[in-house]
Amino acid sequence: MAEIERIYELAEKYYTAENKKEIEKELKELLLPYKNGSVGIAQINPKAGDIEYNSEKIIRYINFAQNIGLDLVVFPELILTGFPLENSIENHPIIAEEGLKWLNEIAKITTETTALVGFVEPCEGKFYDSVAVLYNGKITDIIRKNLMPTNPEFNDYNFMTPSKTPNITEINGIKYQIIIGNDYGNIEQNSDVLINICAEPTKIKNEQIKHGVLSSLAQKYSVPVVYVNQVGATDRASFDGTGRVFDKDGKLISCTKSFEEQFLIVNPNKNLGKIYPTEILSVQPENQFSLDYEADMERTYKTLIQGIKDYFGKTGFQHAVLGLSGGLDSTVCAVLLTDALGKENVFGVSMPSKITSQTSKDDAQVLAQNLGIGFTVAPIKDMFDTTNSCLQNLFSEVEKHWDCRYKQSFTADNIQARSRAMFLWGVSNEFGSCLPVATSDKSEAYMGYATINGDMSGGFAPIADITKTKLFALAKWLNKNRTQKNAIPQSVIEKRPGAELAIDPKTGKPLIAEDALMPYEFLDEVIWRIENKKENYNIMLNSEFLYEKSHPVTREQKTMWLDKFFRRMSTALYKKSIMPPYVIVDSPSYNSKQPITSCGINYKGTEPGEISQKIKQWL
Amino acid sequence: MAEIERIYELAEKYYTAENKKEIEKELKELLLPYKNGSVGIAQINPKAGDIEYNSEKIIRYINFAQNIGLDLVVFPELILTGFPLENSIENHPIIAEEGLKWLNEIAKITTETTALVGFVEPCEGKFYDSVAVLYNGKITDIIRKNLMPTNPEFNDYNFMTPSKTPNITEINGIKYQIIIGNDYGNIEQNSDVLINICAEPTKIKNEQIKHGVLSSLAQKYSVPVVYVNQVGATDRASFDGTGRVFDKDGKLISCTKSFEEQFLIVNPNKNLGKIYPTEILSVQPENQFSLDYEADMERTYKTLIQGIKDYFGKTGFQHAVLGLSGGLDSTVCAVLLTDALGKENVFGVSMPSKITSQTSKDDAQVLAQNLGIGFTVAPIKDMFDTTNSCLQNLFSEVEKHWDCRYKQSFTADNIQARSRAMFLWGVSNEFGSCLPVATSDKSEAYMGYATINGDMSGGFAPIADITKTKLFALAKWLNKNRTQKNAIPQSVIEKRPGAELAIDPKTGKPLIAEDALMPYEFLDEVIWRIENKKENYNIMLNSEFLYEKSHPVTREQKTMWLDKFFRRMSTALYKKSIMPPYVIVDSPSYNSKQPITSCGINYKGTEPGEISQKIKQWL
Repeated sequence: MAEIERIYELAEKYYTAENKKEIEKELKELLLPYKNGSVGIAQINPKAGDIEYNSEKIIRYINFAQNIGLDLVVFPELILTGFPLENSIENHPIIAEEGLKWLNEIAKITTETTALVGFVEPCEGKFYDSVAVLYNGKITDIIRKNLMPTNPEFNDYNFMTPSKTPNITEINGIKYQIIIGNDYGNIEQNSDVLINICAEPTKIKNEQIKHGVLSSLAQKYSVPVVYVNQVGATDRASFDGTGRVFDKDGKLISCTKSFEEQFLIVNPNKNLGKIYPTEILSVQPENQFSLDYEADMERTYKTLIQGIKDYFGKTGFQHAVLGLSGGLDSTVCAVLLTDALGKENVFGVSMPSKITSQTSKDDAQVLAQNLGIGFTVAPIKDMFDTTNSCLQNLFSEVEKHWDCRYKQSFTADNIQARSRAMFLWGVSNEFGSCLPVATSDKSEAYMGYATINGDMSGGFAPIADITKTKLFALAKWLNKNRTQKNAIPQSVIEKRPGAELAIDPKTGKPLIAEDALMPYEFLDEVIWRIENKKENYNIMLNSEFLYEKSHPVTREQKTMWLDKFFRRMSTALYKKSIMPPYVIVDSPSYNSKQPITSCGINYKGTEPGEISQKIKQWL
Repeated sequence: MAEIERIYELAEKYYTAENKKEIEKELKELLLPYKNGSVGIAQINPKAGDIEYNSEKIIRYINFAQNIGLDLVVFPELILTGFPLENSIENHPIIAEEGLKWLNEIAKITTETTALVGFVEPCEGKFYDSVAVLYNGKITDIIRKNLMPTNPEFNDYNFMTPSKTPNITEINGIKYQIIIGNDYGNIEQNSDVLINICAEPTKIKNEQIKHGVLSSLAQKYSVPVVYVNQVGATDRASFDGTGRVFDKDGKLISCTKSFEEQFLIVNPNKNLGKIYPTEILSVQPENQFSLDYEADMERTYKTLIQGIKDYFGKTGFQHAVLGLSGGLDSTVCAVLLTDALGKENVFGVSMPSKITSQTSKDDAQVLAQNLGIGFTVAPIKDMFDTTNSCLQNLFSEVEKHWDCRYKQSFTADNIQARSRAMFLWGVSNEFGSCLPVATSDKSEAYMGYATINGDMSGGFAPIADITKTKLFALAKWLNKNRTQKNAIPQSVIEKRPGAELAIDPKTGKPLIAEDALMPYEFLDEVIWRIENKKENYNIMLNSEFLYEKSHPVTREQKTMWLDKFFRRMSTALYKKSIMPPYVIVDSPSYNSKQPITSCGINYKGTEPGEISQKIKQWL
């Protein structure tokens, strides 16, 4: 229908249009037949704790909804205060108090459109995860969330109290049931529309599950379901939005864009809606590790771009400076930064040492040219020589006191990485609004294969949740799918990664990371099995890896790799704890934490016989 | 009574004694009159996740309890697996599975003494915070915790499921009721002894409250109470132990040593017990900020020493290297490291620049001599010159691209701090088992008055939870109370702190920190008010600070300081997020976290009038 197309055309234009009043007028007329039961899904990107910033967005959307005559406008969970706020809720009660003050003022602007606004409700020293119903100048009702999540992903329970309240609001004869988050135990049988108000981070598997759950709810209660979700990123959590409407048979009738602010007009009772394409929904859940990342690439890319954009934007930084080694990690970071911040805001520094190959130097330069970002070469030879010479004097003194000097140390490797970080932090100190970027990836973060105060140092670490094999896939995808094709030199994708900090005595060439660690394909599957299947050492040892299907691996070799993995993972816990903030893309929890002092965990387990043998010795 | 004294004398000797069998025999005879109802409080220090390590301790204590004929031996909450384990419980289910295997084997060694062993109980994909009752070779019962804490201090709820189970066990005609943590809602009226099994971190206020709660419980139910608590530290959480027994009138009849592993033999029904002195109990709760830290010094010192010792010990590090600037922070760190690790394991490096004063250089050297730690001087001139010269070239290049170069930057200041960190991390890379120590204190951490990859960089940050005014008090206390008096040069305590990174153009002398920030006495009270009273900007502005009692402060000046505090605190969130692990001594939560992207919080709040004004503009 041409009228429906026109509705969505106008709604999309609205925010950047100059003739807002005219658009509102036309929209109001077009929507007249759909008025009763019409809902605006306001999928917005808040700043955690910045009530004024969030209020402005809320008010503009309420105003729009009212001007076009909608019955109802719905915002995501906790939108007024922003989510997550962690301890700030407790430490700074002024956030919730301010929220309440603003909420009262926001209520005053409402007329005939009802607004559902999520907020942290302070009440007698406690805090609740609540939704206010605003109508005709007043807060007419407050609904509280009862089932607070207890899975490790969230810690809302630590800051907000569960509480059961009535949750049905009637608007123009239609009964809306308001469910916050996964509080599905609160659903009663007597409503006409179910509104599900959420703030749920993007997760490849969650999307599948969420879609199924919402569809089933609609069928179970034979009621249309409107799902509204937060969009945007905080330090680590990234929300995709992807609001959805299902009819009472569980069929998807509307879907917002993912990773974008959007105002979607729907009427679940009158079949008004539009399904914007969102790749996420087509991704199949996987039970097996696979190198076919294709189906998840669009989500991965958008999550990364949103994460970078929002971290810089919300902390007030404009410029990024990073080292360009000519390797995969820094290359992919540079492309992502360019797309997220604009090429004029990115500066790459090639910082070669005597180990750096000519190919690496060339690749760095070609990449910078392709992207059009700032670029220069700053050799680290002088830094290395001076540091090395100062340290040799210092080491001789320490050696007089301690007899534990290593015969072979990584000191020289690390001086190189740290000299580079000195340069980048120097630029950050000298130029306004400039953040240095750490280029560590997930495979190397697990292995502690990164230098403290070196390559893992920075104000933000874009790809620290992307494994190496997925990064290769992402590099290829970027070359194929960005407007500018093949920005990444082919040799970057083809060469075997290595830090170029040391020469391999066996080959006389720069050390290859896989030779020092293990094949990335194997390593990434170990990580995948831990994070997704919670598998332990022995289960892994005794089941076939994808890598084994194409490469003969002896049990001895596999044992060696697994031993190395768990040993390195344990000693890398400290490094992981001081990794700069990064975008969570693949990890099951954005809240993951393992104590550094728990490095003595026996991941292999012990045989029962062994245990009784040991006990005998102690008695 | 001489016999009772002999009991405690023997029990204290036992672990280091060679004639264990003789001691056991004598103890068994001495304890005969107290056998019925006798309890051993096994206050032990576990390693999180290291089941074998913890099991050995548990087995040795059960064995001891059996050999001396006790009815019951009680261990702290979750002792078998260690606490806290955070996400590791979920990510590595093998920890709980291994725990169960070991528990079954431990049960086999029990004969006539009942043992209560806390563990993470895995059951059908869920985990429970449980206590196993071991007797006569078997697990005879399992009690689960029902009330999981939901305050921000803990996140157990994220990893373990609440569950209500019967909790009374009868031993030789006496009914013991077992309460895990604060699960006091589970108490029934029909027991003879209440056993409270906990893992609660040390907190100055908690100790007061805990003591009162336990005493009240005894009175309320007219039943003796035995309280057993974990001792030792993990990354941040520090447990003081301080096991206690109250008679049925709520009177303290036994108390273990704080911050030490100990096995205390008691019989709450036969008045057998000993009260070891523990300063903690005498500390009064405070409602007002005060510079009189004296009453809390012993707890502070022991918490710090335990924290350092356990972090190094549990992560397997032996040596510490730190920069000695001659300032308060590094001086106090050096003393604490010496006491925790032994002087032979500490190396101090004086790294003067041209700004460093002669007094500072002298103080660093005198301190090292006094402590007997390793010491050398490594000037940073060459590092500074080389870095500075390299950076100037780099800056000219960047300047061609970006026109946001600062006229006055902190680049030179930071080069100095980072050069020093380069030296310390170099030593760490070159020498075995050596951790560099970050010397940041709490006042400066709040203000972001520290250099990333500089003085706030290290493997551990001992004093990052101690404010500057408390550090001064601690320095004086150390000079008075350590065996070696006055190790800290008087001038360190007398001079006004400054980083000696820059010259104050107003004075021509090194910049004094209080001139750049605000008086520490004022700053520390702001921190205290936020952490303890959750006060906001306006409440602080309108109430009198301790500092104001002795110094005239205009409202304008106070406004300026408060503005600066909240502004700096917001921009320092990133720095706080990458601070190395530190001992929590004073913070109300060892789990505190504020999103970096929440830097837009308006701590001042807005007037209602302002809000409606702003809303008008947006409509």
